[in-house]
This record gives sequence, structure tokens and C-alpha cells, in this order.
Amino acid sequence: MGQRSKILDCTIRDGGLVNNWDFSVEFVQDLYNGLSEAGVEYMEIGYKNSPKLLKATEPNPWRFLDDNFLKEIIPEKKFTKLSALVDIGRVDPNDILPREQSVLDMIRVACYIREVDKGLELVKMFHDLGYETTLNIMALSSVPEKQLIEAFELVRNSPVDVVYIVDSFGSLDPADIEHLVKKFKDLVPNKELGIHTHNNMQLAFANTIAAMRSGVTFLDSSVYGMGRAAGNCHTELLVSYIQKTSYELKPVLGIIEKHMLEMRQKWEWGYIIPYMISGVLNEHPRVAMAYRNTEDRDKFVDFYDKVTSPEVELATVTK
Amino acid sequence: MGQRSKILDCTIRDGGLVNNWDFSVEFVQDLYNGLSEAGVEYMEIGYKNSPKLLKATEPNPWRFLDDNFLKEIIPEKKFTKLSALVDIGRVDPNDILPREQSVLDMIRVACYIREVDKGLELVKMFHDLGYETTLNIMALSSVPEKQLIEAFELVRNSPVDVVYIVDSFGSLDPADIEHLVKKFKDLVPNKELGIHTHNNMQLAFANTIAAMRSGVTFLDSSVYGMGRAAGNCHTELLVSYIQKTSYELKPVLGIIEKHMLEMRQKWEWGYIIPYMISGVLNEHPRVAMAYRNTEDRDKFVDFYDKVTSPEVELATVTK
Repeated sequence: MGQRSKILDCTIRDGGLVNNWDFSVEFVQDLYNGLSEAGVEYMEIGYKNSPKLLKATEPNPWRFLDDNFLKEIIPEKKFTKLSALVDIGRVDPNDILPREQSVLDMIRVACYIREVDKGLELVKMFHDLGYETTLNIMALSSVPEKQLIEAFELVRNSPVDVVYIVDSFGSLDPADIEHLVKKFKDLVPNKELGIHTHNNMQLAFANTIAAMRSGVTFLDSSVYGMGRAAGNCHTELLVSYIQKTSYELKPVLGIIEKHMLEMRQKWEWGYIIPYMISGVLNEHPRVAMAYRNTEDRDKFVDFYDKVTSPEVELATVTK
Repeated sequence: MGQRSKILDCTIRDGGLVNNWDFSVEFVQDLYNGLSEAGVEYMEIGYKNSPKLLKATEPNPWRFLDDNFLKEIIPEKKFTKLSALVDIGRVDPNDILPREQSVLDMIRVACYIREVDKGLELVKMFHDLGYETTLNIMALSSVPEKQLIEAFELVRNSPVDVVYIVDSFGSLDPADIEHLVKKFKDLVPNKELGIHTHNNMQLAFANTIAAMRSGVTFLDSSVYGMGRAAGNCHTELLVSYIQKTSYELKPVLGIIEKHMLEMRQKWEWGYIIPYMISGVLNEHPRVAMAYRNTEDRDKFVDFYDKVTSPEVELATVTK
């Protein structure tokens, strides 16, 4: 089980949504070296969106990856391949070098189901530049079946290598995942599949292994689960669990010991009640994240009342 | 799904293994009232072992439950039934009143597979006194099949109401649970089944819902997961997830908000790397728990080296 599967660690990219990508170069280098020693196949080193298109006022190297900077901090590639994520409408095609001139091996395109056509235009461009490509379809838990079928006709005929099931809200359970994988396999039998989970209901790891058992080969995770809100499936759990002789747990433990405990003190992610509630309600965690930044952050009953009351506008929850 | 299932909250009993049952009467009363309002069917209010047999030098009311004390603190029973756990060789039969004179409704007997005969003697006695009974078979992850088959002949012919699958080491995954449930159903088709999980690999909730889907009806959990080492399946997750109109999440959130955050600051349980490692290795968490009490508590690589080295005796890990 799992011989064909590959781990893609997205600590920097998804974890950056927790700390505004406030990662030191030392941490990113330690992470890259540790993941390489651990035998983790891919590391997503950030977003490759355009600072101009996002009207950024401050530098943010892991959010706006730059090839020259990447070559400086990773002067020598080791075992682990590097990927970057881009968003529709936020990436400038002129920023992307041909693969042979870049440190990056893979570019992943995140999109909602209604933008799949635009996502696939980007995929085609990156594919033609020589990159491995994935299409990560977000918020799948609320997509009607008909929309999925239409979108997947386009996907089937595109050059994309991997199609991702993304449980953006952490609201799916292993049975939901198995159902989705079956549907994806029917609709795009010619593509590899990937899974990206969130841990709102403590099901991120269970959902990931359910996907793996169903034949999904690209498994996203983060070291110590660091990712937006409830975080992701934990890299150390996948490395321990998957029966693949090339995986080594110790380098991942080394990263956790050296960096993650301190980072978890400074920044918040993981199983936290308002995120559990947003997962249960199948909602984006943004309202819960805003609530965690108010002085009412631990008033769980109050939060629950507000987000479940039909009379309260969500925007007022954090006022 | 889940209409027939019942939640048994064991916060006091299993959580007591974290804090030596240092629970205030106010907390236990709030928990009882909250669980009743939430529609949780059972609450395990402690151990009913004998202070004499355990040579206790100090009073410990939740470890050595006394009927008079219980009547004082729970003067009026509400929705939730009460249970107590006993261990083989640690319970004095003379301490157990007939059910109609007791606040307790259920007595659960914990045993290892080799002691099933002794466990069933106790079960028969408690059954004859009018209690609902369960047999909780611990450390199932390392029981050979043949031993299970022999033991279950005895179980099949006993008056026990519920037979529990106990993942003491938190080392099982949902597929293991499904396999065990199938085996239990074959071997004791005339009994209801229960599941008690630990969260070492963040699979406690996933394992519990896998068991429920396979037909297990008694589901153990703890509020905010409070239980030995990595803790248990979280009560608030079961109450949110199971589609049963009688369940209400808000009273459980109220308990967490009022008590559990503070308790989690004071005492340690949950997903912690040495417990993850003991789960992965299918070992009792006692070595990891001892290690967490040394100054090396966060040296995860060192801990991993010690517990996986063939030359090191486990007893020396914490020296």
C-alpha cells in the first residue's frame, strides 16, 4: 500500500496563510534538507503569484517566489522536487521561466470549479514550458454534480498531470472522500489524482489514507500540520504510516523539534473549536479566523450561536 | 447513520489518568449536566476499584467511587446514565451495591485477553446485581487470532451486554477497525459492540466513525479528547457528526469553554510527538509519558532513537 504514492509537503505555502509567510531562510533550507533526507517527493515552497497584480506593498519572498532568489537559497537541488502554487488572475505568465532555467519542477494551479477553463489555460502554458502540472479544484464539498461533469470534460482533454481533490473547508469524511475519488476516476480516468485536506474535524490524515487506498497518488501534507486555520494532514504521520522503504521519519522529527514547537507558540493552527465548527457547517474558515483575532476568541458558545443563527449576517460575527 | 449508536463519555475516567483524577466536584457536576443537555447517553464517572486492594494512601473519589458520595454530588439523575470501570483483581465485590440502591447504571470490566474468564466472572456478578455490563478487551492490536477465538467462546455464552474493541495504544487505522469489527461480529453475533480509541495518530475520531458504520453501537469519547497520553475521540466531534436529533452541540461547547481550555494548560494530553511515535510502534504509551516528565521531553529524535534501537532497554529511556 502506498508504493506509488508521493508526498507533497506544503508547509511553506499553506502554512504561510497562518503567518503571512514570515519564514526565515534558515527554516526553509532546513525544511528542504529535512524533507529530502526523509524521502518526501515534493515541497511546495510558496506561491508564485504576481506582487504587481496583488498590489503588494511589501516584499514577501515565499508568496511571490522569484527564480533568482530561489537559486540563491537552494543552490543545489537534492532529492525533493520543488513546486509552486498559482491562483487564477493573480499570476503573470511573464514571470514564469522555462523549466530548465528554473529551480521549480512543478506548478500547481488552484481554481474554483467555475474557473476550470481559465485554470486549464494556465496549466497548458506551464506544461508547454516543461513543468509538471496539477489542477487543484477548491471547495469541492459544495460543488453540484452536473457542474463537475461539465468541467471534467475539459480536464480530461487537457495536458494536466494531476487533478486534486481539495477539501478546503475540512468538512469531508473518509466516506465522502471515497465517493469523490470514485467519481473523479470515472470522469478523468487518464489522470493521476491528488488529495489536499484540512484538519477541522481531525480527519485530515484519515481522509488522506482513505484517498490513498482508493488509488490517489499525490498526497498533500504539512510538517506538524502547519496550514491555514485547522491546518493540514501531518507530514510526519504520512512518512510514518506509508510502507515505503525510502521514507525516513527522523529528519521530519528533527524539523519539528528544531522549529515547529516554537512556531506553534507564536502562530496558531490546528484543532481549535471555531475551526471545528466551520468544518462541521461546511463553511470557509475565514469567519472563524477573524473571530480568533477578537477578544471573544474563546467564546465558543457565542460563536456557534452567531454562525448558526439565521438572523445574523456572517460579517457581523467579528464586530 | 448512527440512530442506534450511543455515546459514552469517559472524560472523568480516562482523563483521570492524565491528572490523577484531580477533578473538582463543580467540574464533574457541570460535565454531568452538560452531557445530559447534549443528549449524551452515558457518562463514565470514574473507576470503582478498591482503595484497599490498591493500597491507596490518599482519598481519590473518582478513582474509588463511593455510592454515598455519588448520591451527594448527583442528587438527581438527568438524561445521562452513569457508568464505572473496574479492573480485574482491583475491585472488591463487597463494594458493589445492587443497582436499585446505586446511582450507577452500568459497570464496565477492563481486561486483557488472557483474563477474559476472570472478567466474565465479574460481569456475571454485576449483571446479577442488575447493572448493564460491558467487557472492554484492551491492547487488541497485539492479540493473536487464535487467542481471540478461544476467549470469545466464553464471551458468547456470558450475560455481558456489550463487548468493546479497545485500541489501547492508538495504533489502529480505520481499515484495522473494520477488520476487527467483522471478526467480533462473527465471533459474538449475539452481543452489541463498543469502540474505545486513542488519538496517537489522529485517528481516534475516524476509527470511531469507521466502527459506527460497521455496526458498532457504543462509542467512547472524552470532551476535548481528555484521556491518557494522546487522549480519546472527542465528544464534541461525535455530537456534531452523528445525525441524531437528540444531540445538541452547545452544552458540550459550554463545558470546553468553561473548563477544558484551562485544564489543558495545566495538564497535558493530545497529539504530542512521543505519543505519535508509540502509536506508530504499537506500544503502550507509558515510556513516552515518562519521557514527557523529563527535561528531554521535546527531544523527539533522541526519543525515537531510544525506542527503536534494539540495544536499549525501554526502562532506560527515561533515565
